[in-house]
Amino acid sequence: MEQMKLTVLGCGSALPLTGFGHSSQVLEFRNKQFMIDCGEGTQARAVRYHLKTARLNHIFISHLHGDHCFGLVGLVSTLGMLGRTADIEVHAHPDLERLYAPLIGHFCSDFPFAVRFHPFSPHRSEVIYEDRSVRVTTIPLKHRVPSSGFLFEEKEGERHIVRKMTDAYSVPVSFMKDLKAGADFVTEDGEVVPNARLTLPPTPPKRYAYCSDTAYNEKIIPLIEGVDCLYHEATFLTEDKARMAATLHSSAAQAATIAAKAGVKRLIIGHYSARHNGDIAPFLEEAQSVFANTCAAKDGDVFFF
Amino acid sequence: MEQMKLTVLGCGSALPLTGFGHSSQVLEFRNKQFMIDCGEGTQARAVRYHLKTARLNHIFISHLHGDHCFGLVGLVSTLGMLGRTADIEVHAHPDLERLYAPLIGHFCSDFPFAVRFHPFSPHRSEVIYEDRSVRVTTIPLKHRVPSSGFLFEEKEGERHIVRKMTDAYSVPVSFMKDLKAGADFVTEDGEVVPNARLTLPPTPPKRYAYCSDTAYNEKIIPLIEGVDCLYHEATFLTEDKARMAATLHSSAAQAATIAAKAGVKRLIIGHYSARHNGDIAPFLEEAQSVFANTCAAKDGDVFFF
Repeated sequence: MEQMKLTVLGCGSALPLTGFGHSSQVLEFRNKQFMIDCGEGTQARAVRYHLKTARLNHIFISHLHGDHCFGLVGLVSTLGMLGRTADIEVHAHPDLERLYAPLIGHFCSDFPFAVRFHPFSPHRSEVIYEDRSVRVTTIPLKHRVPSSGFLFEEKEGERHIVRKMTDAYSVPVSFMKDLKAGADFVTEDGEVVPNARLTLPPTPPKRYAYCSDTAYNEKIIPLIEGVDCLYHEATFLTEDKARMAATLHSSAAQAATIAAKAGVKRLIIGHYSARHNGDIAPFLEEAQSVFANTCAAKDGDVFFF
Repeated sequence: MEQMKLTVLGCGSALPLTGFGHSSQVLEFRNKQFMIDCGEGTQARAVRYHLKTARLNHIFISHLHGDHCFGLVGLVSTLGMLGRTADIEVHAHPDLERLYAPLIGHFCSDFPFAVRFHPFSPHRSEVIYEDRSVRVTTIPLKHRVPSSGFLFEEKEGERHIVRKMTDAYSVPVSFMKDLKAGADFVTEDGEVVPNARLTLPPTPPKRYAYCSDTAYNEKIIPLIEGVDCLYHEATFLTEDKARMAATLHSSAAQAATIAAKAGVKRLIIGHYSARHNGDIAPFLEEAQSVFANTCAAKDGDVFFF
């Protein structure tokens, strides 16, 4: 199908570090935008990185730590000031609605759109959003508070018409839709032409998985197996063992180990601890020693896959 | 007394504009720090501009628009992560506690300090904070929602000893405290030496006024008369008349007119609308044509007065 486009709006961790904003990213495909996490400053970085937000209708919040959700009311306010009219759907742990609905009621009551909360359980994997072309499934993670990753999957698309063959069999235009859906064609003479002679299989659907925040957790592997791209937090380096254990975060090597074991196509790491002062080279080096096709995200990076 | 130091952490208005953060500033004097407003991103800019926060115990919020308060929970969270133990006092409209206490309860419950809310009425001028050396008084403003400026005043200090004279009259060290407080000195011979012969008057106390957000409002003039420094919002230029009337903000010329009529010593303008794309030269020019001693704030600016 078409490419997925990922814009990283923030890839720092909780303690502020200049140049590394709090977690937020936007996945665009099939003419839709999905925001994942909305840390403080997300609205400012959306402007800085020239993100258009017209098709942003869904926001997914992984967990209720401030660096993943404190930007939510500010973002909604600014979308309102910019003249937005479409409703916004927020998918999150049930506590988010309890905490944020009063603020949205107070600060965003003048806007002509609603903000709807869609609570999900962080304890099991479930489909939390689905439309004609996209499905979003939660990925239970292992963190100090309930935390969920998200798997974004294209649904399988239509078969591709082989024009040369449909011309040869004089398939009428009116039948093309059925053909793309997999139907066999029957000629005027009653000959049945198998669909596979007239079409090629659909392009494999794209899949993107976001896993942050989480300790090393092999249980997620079956859920993310073979995805086109995995974003996995890499808050620490292996040398930060004590902090890592205390805070239930992952090292760059652990993120890469998950990527390797799940056989993903590429890995993006982020959510770097401020203790390394924004020097991401050692994170990249550590991850690449385990899984070569790794990128270390920086704020404003755009990835296509 | 000693100089006041003002650090501007954000001087943009509501719509995000790269380089102009949402409102926040920190006033330091008498070994204390007072934060005024705390828009989204304040904690990140505090790091960016190397602000130490050890003596920051009081936060004053002018009004409940997001660009003046959305950074509050993030700031408190980060102070907690940095090991803070001292309580934080938040002075604001009563609605702030209603909206934010649940968030602070949720996100900041692990910290060893309390966040206390001190509500004040935005409808009258009142002293809302006072200690041995400092007094803070509200300044009712005129905006779309209840809004208050703040006047920070040093209390009058002690009289200055004239060492040559106290030596001449053999004033004992034990009497110096009384002398500084204004007492006359009686010599061993019973001669009364008037205080004014032994001391000089205290240095005039410093005063700083913060007035944002507000439409042009001459009623504030008696409250800010002669202050050492006035920060007055200048969201618009005179040419933006329609927007100004609709939103109850001031132009640079109006800010300067208030400064001139109040006879303040210097004016700082800020809270620029994004519609001029961060070009602050016309704001400065417009204000200086009315009141020469004007500065146009930029994020990260530090002023001494």
